[in-house]
Amino acid sequence: MFDVDGRCYGRRFGGPGGNATGINTALLKERKRQVGVVFSGRQSPGGHNVIWGLYDAIKAHNPNSTLLGFVGGYDLLGRTKDQIRTTEQVNAAMTACQALKLDGLVILGGVTSNMDAAHLAETFSESKCPTKVVGVPVTLNGDLKNQFVETNVGFDTICKVNSQLISNVCTDALSAEKYYYFIRLMGRKASHVALECALQSQSNMVILGEEVAASKLTIFDITKQICDAVQGRAEKDKYHGVILIPEGLVESVPELYALIQEIHGLHLHGASAENIPSQLSPWASALFEFLPPFIRKQLLLHPESDDSAQLSQIEIEKLLAQLVETEMNKRLKEGTYKGKKFNAICHFFGYQARGSLPSKFDCDYAYVLGHVSYHTLAAGLNGYMATITNLKNPVNKWRCGAAPITAMMTVKRWSHGPAAFLVGKPAVHPATVDLRGKAYELLRQNASSFLMDDVYSNPGPLQFDGPGANAKAITLCVEDQDYMGQIKLLQEYLDKVKSIVKPGCSQDVLKAALSAMASVTDVLSMMASPSGGQLPF
Amino acid sequence: MFDVDGRCYGRRFGGPGGNATGINTALLKERKRQVGVVFSGRQSPGGHNVIWGLYDAIKAHNPNSTLLGFVGGYDLLGRTKDQIRTTEQVNAAMTACQALKLDGLVILGGVTSNMDAAHLAETFSESKCPTKVVGVPVTLNGDLKNQFVETNVGFDTICKVNSQLISNVCTDALSAEKYYYFIRLMGRKASHVALECALQSQSNMVILGEEVAASKLTIFDITKQICDAVQGRAEKDKYHGVILIPEGLVESVPELYALIQEIHGLHLHGASAENIPSQLSPWASALFEFLPPFIRKQLLLHPESDDSAQLSQIEIEKLLAQLVETEMNKRLKEGTYKGKKFNAICHFFGYQARGSLPSKFDCDYAYVLGHVSYHTLAAGLNGYMATITNLKNPVNKWRCGAAPITAMMTVKRWSHGPAAFLVGKPAVHPATVDLRGKAYELLRQNASSFLMDDVYSNPGPLQFDGPGANAKAITLCVEDQDYMGQIKLLQEYLDKVKSIVKPGCSQDVLKAALSAMASVTDVLSMMASPSGGQLPF
Repeated sequence: MFDVDGRCYGRRFGGPGGNATGINTALLKERKRQVGVVFSGRQSPGGHNVIWGLYDAIKAHNPNSTLLGFVGGYDLLGRTKDQIRTTEQVNAAMTACQALKLDGLVILGGVTSNMDAAHLAETFSESKCPTKVVGVPVTLNGDLKNQFVETNVGFDTICKVNSQLISNVCTDALSAEKYYYFIRLMGRKASHVALECALQSQSNMVILGEEVAASKLTIFDITKQICDAVQGRAEKDKYHGVILIPEGLVESVPELYALIQEIHGLHLHGASAENIPSQLSPWASALFEFLPPFIRKQLLLHPESDDSAQLSQIEIEKLLAQLVETEMNKRLKEGTYKGKKFNAICHFFGYQARGSLPSKFDCDYAYVLGHVSYHTLAAGLNGYMATITNLKNPVNKWRCGAAPITAMMTVKRWSHGPAAFLVGKPAVHPATVDLRGKAYELLRQNASSFLMDDVYSNPGPLQFDGPGANAKAITLCVEDQDYMGQIKLLQEYLDKVKSIVKPGCSQDVLKAALSAMASVTDVLSMMASPSGGQLPF
Repeated sequence: MFDVDGRCYGRRFGGPGGNATGINTALLKERKRQVGVVFSGRQSPGGHNVIWGLYDAIKAHNPNSTLLGFVGGYDLLGRTKDQIRTTEQVNAAMTACQALKLDGLVILGGVTSNMDAAHLAETFSESKCPTKVVGVPVTLNGDLKNQFVETNVGFDTICKVNSQLISNVCTDALSAEKYYYFIRLMGRKASHVALECALQSQSNMVILGEEVAASKLTIFDITKQICDAVQGRAEKDKYHGVILIPEGLVESVPELYALIQEIHGLHLHGASAENIPSQLSPWASALFEFLPPFIRKQLLLHPESDDSAQLSQIEIEKLLAQLVETEMNKRLKEGTYKGKKFNAICHFFGYQARGSLPSKFDCDYAYVLGHVSYHTLAAGLNGYMATITNLKNPVNKWRCGAAPITAMMTVKRWSHGPAAFLVGKPAVHPATVDLRGKAYELLRQNASSFLMDDVYSNPGPLQFDGPGANAKAITLCVEDQDYMGQIKLLQEYLDKVKSIVKPGCSQDVLKAALSAMASVTDVLSMMASPSGGQLPF
């Protein structure tokens, strides 16, 4: 445990002051508070800036208030590093909070950590533990996204650092004219990072896990897609290219996913890695034997604490490069491909981006979230997440708030995945790339130009000063994510209708309004019913 | 071929104007000139800025002058991509220069390219071809270093981009506390990039090829060194670390080098990769069989055009990580090591840095070199390299000049390496890290602190604006490299002695001066003799 004494944790770039949260601080009681803060789960750039904002807010309201940080996050909270879930872990956390007389506990993390924060809040409340729990959306994966949360601290940095490196590789590819680069990106199950990086760098191809899952593409379908692209480019005398692969792809490919599930099932039943291959079903065994030895070894790794595969250790980009090479050689031999020999170079951009200094956007976002989490605690809210919306606009237009984490939970009725134990229970689920969203639409519109025309774009290195320092993620800016703003707009429409249709208005107006509103409510009622409006995937 | 019409090739950051070369432009004839420019060999950030400077200089002196660029560099000059060496290639180049009526040909590249430029100049001169040839030191390896050349265009960028990524990995290592990262860096045979990155990032360890070669360390010695470091850190309860490996290390390890030489010899005699293992000598065969399959495959790759190994394809970092893991597991089993299990993650930082936007330093350096190369041509010099010294000082203190490339050539009398065909012939040799130099001394002074104390330093991303934008390479700044400045200083001393010791001075003064100068000339004569002063390695 350490006392957060205001030393520099990362960089702060003129983050807005204490009143930027939009909450009238004069209404808050300025009593002395004891607050704890925990980093839960994996690293993400900008986490320290949340602490900075939180510290500044606490001290601004009472210099005698204290902020305590739990070193390593998990030492105190049990043996697991990614979760606060078992009764044992939850009780350990509660004991610590009570012993330290914490008024509040701020948990920084992604989907799992915030869900755990909600459960912790519930348990504390039931047990009359006075510590209020607040979550902060900090995860480079960018998958803690819903009507209240537009993006996560760290996502902007990761995408900028990776896009720069991808663009550098694009320049190299174009200059050398002889290699295809297969680049795997961090980001867990969802492909948000890969999508954003594809838009920023305008690399030739990106294989989104969500597309693969929606179209149920096998590894051979994907191989064929890439081979056709390579062949198409060869016809234009281009023998280079850059292809982005999200690390989660391996779980999106149906047959690989099924194989991983079987392997994890055997792990759960105590089988050792050496013995698993012989215990696989005939189908899974055939697939397993087909795969190259390096990937077999990686698939046999023990699953993560949340039962998912060790995505960072599975070199899916190498598997694809190898399959594409084999197929291109086959086509060359058969004479269906007449170009030069296909050459691939593989990269994994993971750890070198995760430890980056945070981008200016992430610094500001994190710093303000730190303030917001203080005000959320001070308002006595428990089990809430600190939120900021309208992020695509300048900082003085940001809207601060807090939303109950339970309001972000949904119930999944179908799942055969590692999260199957949550089926039927309300949970915060990682948001996948919305294939009907504007960001994906933008990618689709440009996909053939990206593929064929080498319109590579280099966003350059992260800038802290000068032009470019205020750049924001493309996927953040193209989406209309201002949910609360839109609700406000809707209310304005309703008010307007009310003000038009009042005693004294003409019979025609009343008739038209009645008919229109009857139809609108009909449609909305149907859409809002439990079975309506939602597609079964 | 393209007409260089002043479009933006990379970024220019207020590079000094046309008169920055220090040459009095009024003295130059302003006649119309036709100049060609070639990128020779591998990519390096900043090359386009040389073109920019060259173009600006040419147009400033006569708007009707033309700059022609040879697309791809090698298309015109023969089938090889890295060299202009065979009679066929040289003649093709001469024919092209004559057909295009080129007054000058500017060749951008590293050691090989500049040596080829010198040979080209000689042939042109002998054949009365009027084209003057000028070389420009552009290579990310930083190994074209001598009394005239302090650093190369691209080196600063590569080191900054890599140091940032290494530092990010250091942050990650310190945060996760469970991995050792083995990072291989580009830079060919010499370890300049690795040394600079080690100083910038203050990573735990760096294995310099020059140290390994000087101490004749085997791969097992290196493994033991790393294992001892891991064990030492474990005793302080540290289970993470970052170790830098230059890609050239594989050629510095005596037994691996000998093995590679044998393999290349068999390649030269037409053996196919499949047949080579069975034709190795018993000793080489034993070593080969000991190595893991992935590295065997990589060692069998066909050598580069200059007969050296395909360093970018040989995963020496993985070999070391694997050997260290095996040794640590052995020590654990034997009880000589009592810490936690050793875990390694490997990275290769190559292509993602090489295509980066150039740093501000490289932009300026390249832009001014472009100007200098114009003035060198305009002065009628042939076979010269454009140079700038005093680079560690602000731009207005830089000293521009040109030096005959032949003056940079030395004769190696011993070599059993890939450059053996050059033994006895004058050649420009890649400069290795000077183990008696100040930069290496700085590393040695800090090595134990870097190793044990995790004093990681993150230079942050390349900045184009604001504080940090003017940062320069540490190895550039610690060395006293102002050769021409020092010669000038010496001349001042000589003049001073002359002005003191003249008719009218006392007998004592004359006697003392005579005695001192006799002794100085004695020592210098001995040192300057062919066999003196130089150590046989």
